[in-house]
Amino acid sequence: MMRIDILTLFPDMFPGVLNESILKKAQEKGAVNIRLVNFREFADNKHKTVDDYPYGGGAGMVLKPQPIFDAVEHVTAESPGARIILLCPQGERYTQKKAEELAKEEHLVLICGHYEGYDERIRQYLVTDEISIGDYILTGGELGAMVIVDSVVRLLPGVLGNEASPVDDSFSSGLLEYPQYTRPADFRGMKVPDVLLSGNHQLIAEWREKESLRRTVQKRPDLLVDYPLTEKQKQWLKEWEQERE
Amino acid sequence: MMRIDILTLFPDMFPGVLNESILKKAQEKGAVNIRLVNFREFADNKHKTVDDYPYGGGAGMVLKPQPIFDAVEHVTAESPGARIILLCPQGERYTQKKAEELAKEEHLVLICGHYEGYDERIRQYLVTDEISIGDYILTGGELGAMVIVDSVVRLLPGVLGNEASPVDDSFSSGLLEYPQYTRPADFRGMKVPDVLLSGNHQLIAEWREKESLRRTVQKRPDLLVDYPLTEKQKQWLKEWEQERE
Repeated sequence: MMRIDILTLFPDMFPGVLNESILKKAQEKGAVNIRLVNFREFADNKHKTVDDYPYGGGAGMVLKPQPIFDAVEHVTAESPGARIILLCPQGERYTQKKAEELAKEEHLVLICGHYEGYDERIRQYLVTDEISIGDYILTGGELGAMVIVDSVVRLLPGVLGNEASPVDDSFSSGLLEYPQYTRPADFRGMKVPDVLLSGNHQLIAEWREKESLRRTVQKRPDLLVDYPLTEKQKQWLKEWEQERE
Repeated sequence: MMRIDILTLFPDMFPGVLNESILKKAQEKGAVNIRLVNFREFADNKHKTVDDYPYGGGAGMVLKPQPIFDAVEHVTAESPGARIILLCPQGERYTQKKAEELAKEEHLVLICGHYEGYDERIRQYLVTDEISIGDYILTGGELGAMVIVDSVVRLLPGVLGNEASPVDDSFSSGLLEYPQYTRPADFRGMKVPDVLLSGNHQLIAEWREKESLRRTVQKRPDLLVDYPLTEKQKQWLKEWEQERE
């Protein structure tokens, strides 16, 4: 069973997300054990202070090394090989590949700052990974921790049942997903493409492959850089180029 | 006051995140009004079904157009100019620039799918934006909606007080943030750099600028492509190159 410890000053942010849907089922099935640790409890001062002014001056507060070092050492006492992950804007950009890598681990520790910066010694001497979920500014690391937990836990063996199909797994094939349609065939005059109602499986498969490629060209051409195009796909690209001219 | 409607089948995922910290304060101050709408309530069939099998066959379910069109039309009845945002893996990659753009709007509607794909007519005829928070696979759009809400609301006028400093705002200056340290100056033998204890503000400012640049070069050289380097910064880069040789 994978173990995940989330170190945060705002543990109440998590239960709503952890107790719904696939994350809930994964815990019930025993695929993962997720624990919330308020690292304020590890502060060794009377007032349970976890942050302090930055040396050298400047605005804002900085998370002290002591409570975080002690909390991490507590949760990893029996698993010296745990991945200690700091959520921070300067981290490595999170990708599906990283999720697959983390899904092979036995123990993840996710450290969430909130408002404050981290004392550099936490980065330098304690953590194994620094991760950012994207180039945008969030109030804290908590949403990043939720993203990592969700994306990793759904990859654990036995977690995904029929309720979670590969229908939205845009990145698995290397191309964006083709357009999907369901009933009604005519919704307020907006119609489903005829081919999907034809019952001709070969034509449907070809239409989907073509639309998948078309959408990738339009929205995420960067994904094609390393994509091994087939001859047919190259031909389609050529046709579209000619149409544009 | 900004209004945000979140359309989801899992409204219980949100209160923990919406009722803590800055999002809580922003709502108390009247800067934003956030509403959770379970679009299942808009399904016009007896069993309140919101998804169905895909036309043309294949695994997984597809969200029907009817409940989502009706829910969006309900919440935007009085604001025809609302931004209708679909969270999906194929969307435009979310960035701080997009957060700044959305923060100028009066009304955001965030549509969260879960497991299922979306009927293409939702994309084509209903939404104004498709957004992805990153290249990784999540169970649903809910975490993406939380990321958008958090990153946008903290930009609204009057929301950020002293509790949220620019200390972690790595992307605002164009460079990554410099290393931060707080007490103790010596933690288990790990020491704070002398310059930060010197009291010499000019030296501290120069050290910080240099470390900020160094960290950006090491971790995110892509950020330097459009960055207007000063002569001093160019000189540092040259020195580091010579050191490496």
